[in-house]
Amino acid sequence: MNKFPLKQLKISLTLLVLFLWLLLPAAADEGLWPYNLVPKDYLAKKYKFRVTDDWLNHLRLASVRFGGASASFVSPDGLVLTNHHVGRGAIQNLSTAERNLIKTGFYARTRQEELKCPGTQLWVLQEIEDVTNLVLGAEKPGMSAQEVLAARQKAMADIQKEASEKSGLRCQVVSLYSGSMYHLYKYKIYTDVRLVFAPEEDIAFFGGDPDNFTYPRYDLDISIFRVYENDQPLKAPHYLKWKSSPLKEGDLVFCSGNPGSTGRMLTYDQLLFLRDVNYPFTIANLKRRQAVLHEYASRGPEQERIALNTLFGVENRLKATTGYNSGLLDENLMAKKLAEEQAIRKAIAADPELAKEYGQAWEEIAQAQKEYASFFKEYMLFERANAFNTVYFNLARSLVRGAQRERPAGAPAMAGRRMPAEIHDDFEIVKLADSLQLLKEQLPNLQETKWILGCQTPEEAAKALISGTRLKDPEFRKKLAAGGAEAINMCNDPMIKLALMVEPLSQGVRERYAKRVQAVETKNGTLVARAIFKLKGTSIPPDATGTLRLSFGLVKGYVENGQKIPFQTTLAGLYKKAQEKNFQSPWSLPKRWLQRKPALNLKVPINFVATIDSIGGNSGSPVVNRKGEFVGALFDGNIQSLPTRFVYEEKISRSVMVHADGIIEALLKVYDARPLVDELLGR
Amino acid sequence: MNKFPLKQLKISLTLLVLFLWLLLPAAADEGLWPYNLVPKDYLAKKYKFRVTDDWLNHLRLASVRFGGASASFVSPDGLVLTNHHVGRGAIQNLSTAERNLIKTGFYARTRQEELKCPGTQLWVLQEIEDVTNLVLGAEKPGMSAQEVLAARQKAMADIQKEASEKSGLRCQVVSLYSGSMYHLYKYKIYTDVRLVFAPEEDIAFFGGDPDNFTYPRYDLDISIFRVYENDQPLKAPHYLKWKSSPLKEGDLVFCSGNPGSTGRMLTYDQLLFLRDVNYPFTIANLKRRQAVLHEYASRGPEQERIALNTLFGVENRLKATTGYNSGLLDENLMAKKLAEEQAIRKAIAADPELAKEYGQAWEEIAQAQKEYASFFKEYMLFERANAFNTVYFNLARSLVRGAQRERPAGAPAMAGRRMPAEIHDDFEIVKLADSLQLLKEQLPNLQETKWILGCQTPEEAAKALISGTRLKDPEFRKKLAAGGAEAINMCNDPMIKLALMVEPLSQGVRERYAKRVQAVETKNGTLVARAIFKLKGTSIPPDATGTLRLSFGLVKGYVENGQKIPFQTTLAGLYKKAQEKNFQSPWSLPKRWLQRKPALNLKVPINFVATIDSIGGNSGSPVVNRKGEFVGALFDGNIQSLPTRFVYEEKISRSVMVHADGIIEALLKVYDARPLVDELLGR
Repeated sequence: MNKFPLKQLKISLTLLVLFLWLLLPAAADEGLWPYNLVPKDYLAKKYKFRVTDDWLNHLRLASVRFGGASASFVSPDGLVLTNHHVGRGAIQNLSTAERNLIKTGFYARTRQEELKCPGTQLWVLQEIEDVTNLVLGAEKPGMSAQEVLAARQKAMADIQKEASEKSGLRCQVVSLYSGSMYHLYKYKIYTDVRLVFAPEEDIAFFGGDPDNFTYPRYDLDISIFRVYENDQPLKAPHYLKWKSSPLKEGDLVFCSGNPGSTGRMLTYDQLLFLRDVNYPFTIANLKRRQAVLHEYASRGPEQERIALNTLFGVENRLKATTGYNSGLLDENLMAKKLAEEQAIRKAIAADPELAKEYGQAWEEIAQAQKEYASFFKEYMLFERANAFNTVYFNLARSLVRGAQRERPAGAPAMAGRRMPAEIHDDFEIVKLADSLQLLKEQLPNLQETKWILGCQTPEEAAKALISGTRLKDPEFRKKLAAGGAEAINMCNDPMIKLALMVEPLSQGVRERYAKRVQAVETKNGTLVARAIFKLKGTSIPPDATGTLRLSFGLVKGYVENGQKIPFQTTLAGLYKKAQEKNFQSPWSLPKRWLQRKPALNLKVPINFVATIDSIGGNSGSPVVNRKGEFVGALFDGNIQSLPTRFVYEEKISRSVMVHADGIIEALLKVYDARPLVDELLGR
Repeated sequence: MNKFPLKQLKISLTLLVLFLWLLLPAAADEGLWPYNLVPKDYLAKKYKFRVTDDWLNHLRLASVRFGGASASFVSPDGLVLTNHHVGRGAIQNLSTAERNLIKTGFYARTRQEELKCPGTQLWVLQEIEDVTNLVLGAEKPGMSAQEVLAARQKAMADIQKEASEKSGLRCQVVSLYSGSMYHLYKYKIYTDVRLVFAPEEDIAFFGGDPDNFTYPRYDLDISIFRVYENDQPLKAPHYLKWKSSPLKEGDLVFCSGNPGSTGRMLTYDQLLFLRDVNYPFTIANLKRRQAVLHEYASRGPEQERIALNTLFGVENRLKATTGYNSGLLDENLMAKKLAEEQAIRKAIAADPELAKEYGQAWEEIAQAQKEYASFFKEYMLFERANAFNTVYFNLARSLVRGAQRERPAGAPAMAGRRMPAEIHDDFEIVKLADSLQLLKEQLPNLQETKWILGCQTPEEAAKALISGTRLKDPEFRKKLAAGGAEAINMCNDPMIKLALMVEPLSQGVRERYAKRVQAVETKNGTLVARAIFKLKGTSIPPDATGTLRLSFGLVKGYVENGQKIPFQTTLAGLYKKAQEKNFQSPWSLPKRWLQRKPALNLKVPINFVATIDSIGGNSGSPVVNRKGEFVGALFDGNIQSLPTRFVYEEKISRSVMVHADGIIEALLKVYDARPLVDELLGR
């Protein structure tokens, strides 16, 4: 399909260099590959490994989507292994002030002791179907960017609905290559999920935020659940067997998970928008949230318990975003992106037909970035509710928006959906006050800001809102939801009033974003992707979309600041690191780990790294060897891996895994969990 | 049709008295009769006057709807006569700071001098059709009150649409007897209307607000326009000839006009609501507006010119409402209303079948009053915009609401519709500041109030809003209207923001009113009216609905505080009154009237009274004798007539007319308007 019209070009030396890039395949082991687009020939040629459909199907069906992240079946009786930080929400939900499972850990010695996790759903991908023609067929000539987007969304919704009804599965259409390809994903959903094992947070998140996104690491970042069906443990049709041979440097390994999003097909102007507008705002906002949460957590152990989950999320996002941005601040990386884009654009411009079809795409995307920048603060603070950081506002907004949608009579109201298990008003006040302060700083002259604050400080306003709202009362929420628009519009609850008052502006920026940014990016993103296809064929992988992907790489250390970093760490290293840090939080060790040290084989590896391509959402992904055996669970990337959001790199960028051997050693010797180990090892 | 089941009742003396009332016909000459329900037999029997269809058709087709009030054709070349205060808006629109036609008066000596009145429409009723069965047929068993209302409204809209398309006329379905009867009214509309004559305000509104709603009076409250078609004076197919014989006490006269609304079929609880909730609020609000307008008008002649039209309206409404309320504060009147209602309810209760069908109606209406009272202030201040008394808010709200309605692409935006000819920001600030003060006093704890005022005084808030808004710029309005919801929602104009912010509460009270008050009143009002039919037949007239009605009565003086008030006043009385008041405003006389006094026949009558049933909206109605000849134009009622809103009374209640003879004498001797007089008298 390479229609690249070489002969028409006046070739200069610079151009020649650029064009050489065009002829190269995707870089090395790059790729978060959809299961139906795995580069089998590449693997066969480079690694002498012929991937079979059976091998792929087995790994796919043993892979699990856990919230926005990843997991896998690891026993025939429905055990599911993921990261501790992926299972964290479920574990936190089972905790109270008296029984803090995050802190103490948990192990169900018998099946009766396994704890049901309300609201936790696990998804398993059953089938993928190409529906590209159906979706793109909805587009008619002469449609505006917004109409194209609407037509595609309508087609996708129709396909999903029909497929869901026909199959009884949860069906989602996934847009690949910026809307150049559409695949229908069909999921089986499991809703009875029970907690089997969780280590103490001190070992699961050893090193805490300072060591997050770093390597070498020593974390037992795992949690184990069991899926039930009809109140019986699930007979899992596909599960991963434990590795049968030692893991060595240079081994080829595969990772199967749900990477959230990458931006490798973004245009240069989109990257500039992220670097100059989006990320600076986001990073500053996360930093202030981090500081506020730290202050709150420092008030006492109960406050620490309340804040920790949120703090974890904020620090994780802060470090990730800072890391992504470091790539964009890297002049070499940006120069490379620009050169790539210029090469494509020049090649397109040189062919009148291609120029006519694709030539304007980059410029239109660039214009959309300028437009977005003009209302980005309003978009983030209002529509994305960055100015109203409290669960009460989320509740109020969902009630307000629920009432605006016409609901057929008798349809269930959605009051209390996604309601957190516990709400602490003092915590909510602290968060809201800080976000109102942000609003005051960012948009001081906006009418809404003046209304919200009036003569009050952000803290006073937050106190009045939180202490005045009756949304904590489930009966009140139920009544409101049942009363429809009239009840909402007449309601004098201050939080509902606030949500109503900010709705016009929120709606305005949402619509403006949809029409002048999203629609333009979708339409022209498709054109850019098609232009790249014309020039490079389909050898490049699509960006991540939060759906199941296969990636691969080698188990391999790397050199940092002239120092060799080994491919794996051991239990001995864990104790050494804790000692170096004087066992001070976040490097303190659970009591049990101190007591059982003598029993442990300290040479057993606990973490390892590989050149596997991954990104946020891959947390909990099973990593397997050529035989498809479980060798570890991905839980992080090193700091150098973060810029791979935009450009893949395999010299120093690494994914970080919990080692299968470390899991077994800990379960046996620290947690006395022989029955669990027997089940995992199939004994 | 009198199915009154006498024999089933246990008759007590009290009941007997009540039931006697039930057997009485409607009181004396009461009645604002639809043209197709005129009580011909009553007139024949009582006055030996047989009304023919020709007589009725001629009077109907010579009657004109002028804005919300009345007028008539008075020459074959399309002259239309109405009150000065009815034509006032049109005259004001033709005025400027340099040429104040309200103050100086106007007379077009030639047709070329006649002044086009943009926006003025005159309606003439061509036909009435009974569509009761069509409307009531839309109601299905088991419908809720709200569904019944919606079904009827839908049926009415359909009928109007079809009839308009078929006839090319403006068609409106009118609900009579609280929704027991529905008639379709078809109007021909004239849009080229030109000012021919207006006297000076000093004589048109001699006595001003103090003398408004009083008698004896001496006002030349007339203005004369001419209708054009195709730029030619209309050849009026029906017009009223001038009276051919003197008007005497005891003469039977008829009045043909568009009375706005009466409340004679309201239940006792509805009257209590008006007395205790609605009128006290309304009167207090009008009083404060009056004071503010007076203060503004006193600042100088230009301010007086700007404020006067508004002030006139406010004072007129204030006096009317106070008068209506005086009836409700009259214990005798209320006792009579209660007795009437109890008689009906007892009669209904005594028959199990009637009780089942109608028995609950009064109680349900009573409940709706309680409900209404619970949000009445919010309804008036927000939905009826009593808190935002400025044209800018009206503009902002219509833009906001226009954007919320889906408009087909390409449909004309409504920016600038109903835009006043001149807006004066200092005047707008004064009005808005006062209404914000009202809001502050009435609903100080409401969130919206706090947002609007913040740390400002009402005056500061009003200044900020009026000086900040760009709605005075037609280009800005046009752009906003064209931009739809997105432009409105993103707009940072303070007045648009305000209109958006108050919209949820406004919408809430509007919906609550529609559902829990209006729908309940409509459904049960129909039941009450039907119950009265069952007991009394159709001898009682329906309440006024702003549509063409015929009423009648006798030219007749009355006794007030033991003093006989004569049936007419003369020009001599006018000069005497002015003298008594030392010619001080509002009893000053135009210079021309002082100069021409010697030329006038001072015995010529200027105003007269009759027992004609009338109410606001009848202003400008032609009053005719048995021959259908024009004898005068109704322009007021005496103060005792105001309670007839709820109960008709003919002992001291009077309608007040400008006398045909006074008009001719003034036109000839004061205004030198012989050509006009010749046209009026058909010479």
